[in-house]
Amino acid sequence: MKLLEERILSDGQVLGDEILKVDSFLTHQVDTKLMQAVGQRFADIYRTHNITKVVTIEASGIAPALYTADALDVPMVFAKKAKNLTLNEELLTTDVFSFTKQTTSTVSISRKFISPDDRILIVDDFLANGQASLGLIRLIEQVGASIEGIGIVIEKSFQEGRQSLIDKGFQVSSLARIDRFEAGHVVFAEADDASLDKK
Amino acid sequence: MKLLEERILSDGQVLGDEILKVDSFLTHQVDTKLMQAVGQRFADIYRTHNITKVVTIEASGIAPALYTADALDVPMVFAKKAKNLTLNEELLTTDVFSFTKQTTSTVSISRKFISPDDRILIVDDFLANGQASLGLIRLIEQVGASIEGIGIVIEKSFQEGRQSLIDKGFQVSSLARIDRFEAGHVVFAEADDASLDKK
Repeated sequence: MKLLEERILSDGQVLGDEILKVDSFLTHQVDTKLMQAVGQRFADIYRTHNITKVVTIEASGIAPALYTADALDVPMVFAKKAKNLTLNEELLTTDVFSFTKQTTSTVSISRKFISPDDRILIVDDFLANGQASLGLIRLIEQVGASIEGIGIVIEKSFQEGRQSLIDKGFQVSSLARIDRFEAGHVVFAEADDASLDKK
Repeated sequence: MKLLEERILSDGQVLGDEILKVDSFLTHQVDTKLMQAVGQRFADIYRTHNITKVVTIEASGIAPALYTADALDVPMVFAKKAKNLTLNEELLTTDVFSFTKQTTSTVSISRKFISPDDRILIVDDFLANGQASLGLIRLIEQVGASIEGIGIVIEKSFQEGRQSLIDKGFQVSSLARIDRFEAGHVVFAEADDASLDKK
């Protein structure tokens, strides 16, 4: 998505070899118009999939997921992160390890919000090693709902997450794909939605 | 806001004497159209205040805050909650005690996203004892930005939060105000935006 790539180039900060900070428009301060365009793009990609629910994980996945759900006219559900969660039958739960924070969180969704008939689009702000998306997939698979695809705002293509998801047979749609950082600058790989950008 | 009150009556669950569960449209699963209407309502109330930024706290404040910011055409910033946060000069931080969870969290906003010239509207999903809103106020006051008001989706009017905020001179705009629970049902007080509902 050209608009997103341009924004990453102008406002993203490359820190060290692996970190891209986009807290001025995505992960802390949020540009609502950009997120609306992101949501519209995911909706365009998955329009024919009869999506019934958009699922994400708190907190920075919520903004892009909300506008995607809005554009598809379906509810959005955000999974919750907690440490030492008291398990109960009403919750779908799984453990997710964060390489960044070196901590394990329990991620949960109330069972009542996912049914076997659902056709789900997962949306998240970042895809790196794929642990968050794989965790959401494990939750949804407990119910047997269909996972139609995984919409990612920014993918770090030099980490293994994308391949892990594709190996499991999932469609991954990343609107910006970072091939590498070169001398503090972002070098993009072709985004999955490149054909939808206006010429 | 009539639409919101009706939704609380139809889909909210009263648990015990003090808990209203609205996880089917606000705090876990999110109804995007209802949130859009909520955001539009806050924008209508604060239209003349020249708001420059909408500030909330993760995670369930994000949806109503996002649509409010969208309707006012300004950025949204969400404060982050962490335990044992490493303090640094770039962060505004304060401690917030949660009566529900009986835990203290450090809430933070990057200093670069709040300037003394900002005219801020705080938006949150719930107002009970007011600790979250008071925490956000402390963060914003560290910078000296103007706090134009506090927009609340659901207020528990039988708890002290509203009065604490009003005592400090803040305008509180609650779209649904719960006076009390009676035999498992919600009894509303008049909402602050009642005059804006169509007859």
